[in-house]
Amino acid sequence: MASEGNSEEVSNRQVILKEYVSGFPQESDMTLITSTIKLHVPEGTSGVLVKNLYLSCDPYMRGRMGIVKGFFFDPFTPGSPIIGRGVSKVLRSRHPDFKEGDLVYGMTGWEDYSLIAATQNIYKIQDTDLPVSYYLGILGMPGLSAYVGFHYLCCPRKGEHVFVSAASGAVGQLVGQFAKLSGCYVVGSAGSKEKVDLLKNKFGFDDAFNYKDELDLDTTLKRYFPEGIDIYFENVGGKMLDAVLLNMRMRGRISVCGMISQYNLEQPEGVCNLTSLVYKQIRMEGFLVSEYYNTYPKYLETVLPYIKEGKMEYVEDIAEGLESAPAALIGLFAGRNVGKQVVAVARD
Amino acid sequence: MASEGNSEEVSNRQVILKEYVSGFPQESDMTLITSTIKLHVPEGTSGVLVKNLYLSCDPYMRGRMGIVKGFFFDPFTPGSPIIGRGVSKVLRSRHPDFKEGDLVYGMTGWEDYSLIAATQNIYKIQDTDLPVSYYLGILGMPGLSAYVGFHYLCCPRKGEHVFVSAASGAVGQLVGQFAKLSGCYVVGSAGSKEKVDLLKNKFGFDDAFNYKDELDLDTTLKRYFPEGIDIYFENVGGKMLDAVLLNMRMRGRISVCGMISQYNLEQPEGVCNLTSLVYKQIRMEGFLVSEYYNTYPKYLETVLPYIKEGKMEYVEDIAEGLESAPAALIGLFAGRNVGKQVVAVARD
Repeated sequence: MASEGNSEEVSNRQVILKEYVSGFPQESDMTLITSTIKLHVPEGTSGVLVKNLYLSCDPYMRGRMGIVKGFFFDPFTPGSPIIGRGVSKVLRSRHPDFKEGDLVYGMTGWEDYSLIAATQNIYKIQDTDLPVSYYLGILGMPGLSAYVGFHYLCCPRKGEHVFVSAASGAVGQLVGQFAKLSGCYVVGSAGSKEKVDLLKNKFGFDDAFNYKDELDLDTTLKRYFPEGIDIYFENVGGKMLDAVLLNMRMRGRISVCGMISQYNLEQPEGVCNLTSLVYKQIRMEGFLVSEYYNTYPKYLETVLPYIKEGKMEYVEDIAEGLESAPAALIGLFAGRNVGKQVVAVARD
Repeated sequence: MASEGNSEEVSNRQVILKEYVSGFPQESDMTLITSTIKLHVPEGTSGVLVKNLYLSCDPYMRGRMGIVKGFFFDPFTPGSPIIGRGVSKVLRSRHPDFKEGDLVYGMTGWEDYSLIAATQNIYKIQDTDLPVSYYLGILGMPGLSAYVGFHYLCCPRKGEHVFVSAASGAVGQLVGQFAKLSGCYVVGSAGSKEKVDLLKNKFGFDDAFNYKDELDLDTTLKRYFPEGIDIYFENVGGKMLDAVLLNMRMRGRISVCGMISQYNLEQPEGVCNLTSLVYKQIRMEGFLVSEYYNTYPKYLETVLPYIKEGKMEYVEDIAEGLESAPAALIGLFAGRNVGKQVVAVARD
């Protein structure tokens, strides 16, 4: 490729996983080191060398920080950089689909520069009218998760009552907006007043509450859903799920996108009200968005106009600098992020 | 109607619920009393007067013995007879669809004779070649439950691996046989050596185990399903479900017919492994067979030939006499029944 002329060596900061984590992860489980990298794609290979611009912090990454039985991704390698989704700029390419200057999103390393051999996991960004970090959120995996989990698994009908937990997060804020666009009544829960205000004032939820202010979630849900819940979009698990099960309506649907409250527990909480599944004929279904990637082009066709016409909003929480990445990732599990958590490594 | 001539008064034994039950029900929660009844349908009504032949003991009846939040049936009335499914002979009728001597099945009282006003809940037995008590089992609600829960909810494919709990019970024994007829590999669990032998030798399960002999159900399931479970037909809940969740395969289906291990607990057991729903994209769905009654004629067309051609077996546990009904019902929750529990009140 033409872009292979220059192969200067540059400094490359990397966020390394020190060792496997059990229980609640800490910033100190990761460390920032500085090595060097040649801005060069080895001859005889077909990879790309990218400069990372934005990195994505996603709850599923907790599962890769340790050995989790049955987890759908391999664990990270201690001593190596964290791997996650990112938006990057191509500096060098030996692959015909990518050229110098292209913006791409997909799996990359938590470092300034990455040599990506697995180009099947990166995609060229075609539409650059919107903030490119959106490809880590509304225009990427979390967006498709919200769409698939809500529309395909829950089959919403106009007028149905929808509850979303972790509702201001990367996925939840979109589920609420998809629910409103489908003519549903939607209530969200989140963990701070600021987030609750966002839900009501920015994302158009009909109502919202701070679960940390509530003594008894069953009573809370009865207050917000006196006639019960038709659709629950599950992001948290544990106590919230138990309370929701008591408040579902007949033939309710629960889409299980994640259970963030459980990921750091040595022993997960028990969910006691599963007999409701029988009494109320509830369908509860987990999904991995990776199984639905074939629907992504159709999703983009749907959602790009929504954003450009102002029918959907998206809120990101952008941490500045690679050095802030460990705190940003850990912050997800304490709910410190307000909106989709992204790390800005470089602006271009 | 012609059959309304004779209205003699006869003695009528009744099994009465004394008061609402909480926790594990006891025989002493019910009592046998003797009253009288006129063999007569009051003028101006359109009911039937029946002699009860067989009464059905079903786990869901536990839910009617107390106040269970969200339960799909009203509770029984303390001081009145238990209500359940039965096979009965019509002695008097003022309804055009029923005549003296007809055999019917449907909701009746736990007593020698019942005046049934709600004739929409009884059905005339058309095919009397088989034991009529089968209308409380393979030809009735449990049979349709097994068929719907397995075929409609689990969508079995040939070669898939199926696990059935409470597998020798009224429903479980049929699920196993439907699974074999669908070309699946099927393993059942039950609570005694006698039941395990039945599963393997009578019902054609590929394998079976006594859960009471197992120290760790996760290990047990790994032994019987080294490659995992595609379909779980859930009758018990609690610890078994937790172990199953760890052993499901990707895109597994769980049909939740009941959770008998939980019905008598003041505080249900917690199920801890629900994150598997996400990791393995599992669909878990509860159902009430009453929602599928429209499919019953088609079910009968399927299953009657199976029985007559010897392709399916059915095992009943018949308790003799109305006086044995309380013990028979309570016995369900201790697993004392071997096969479908029925009470024979009279043979004709």
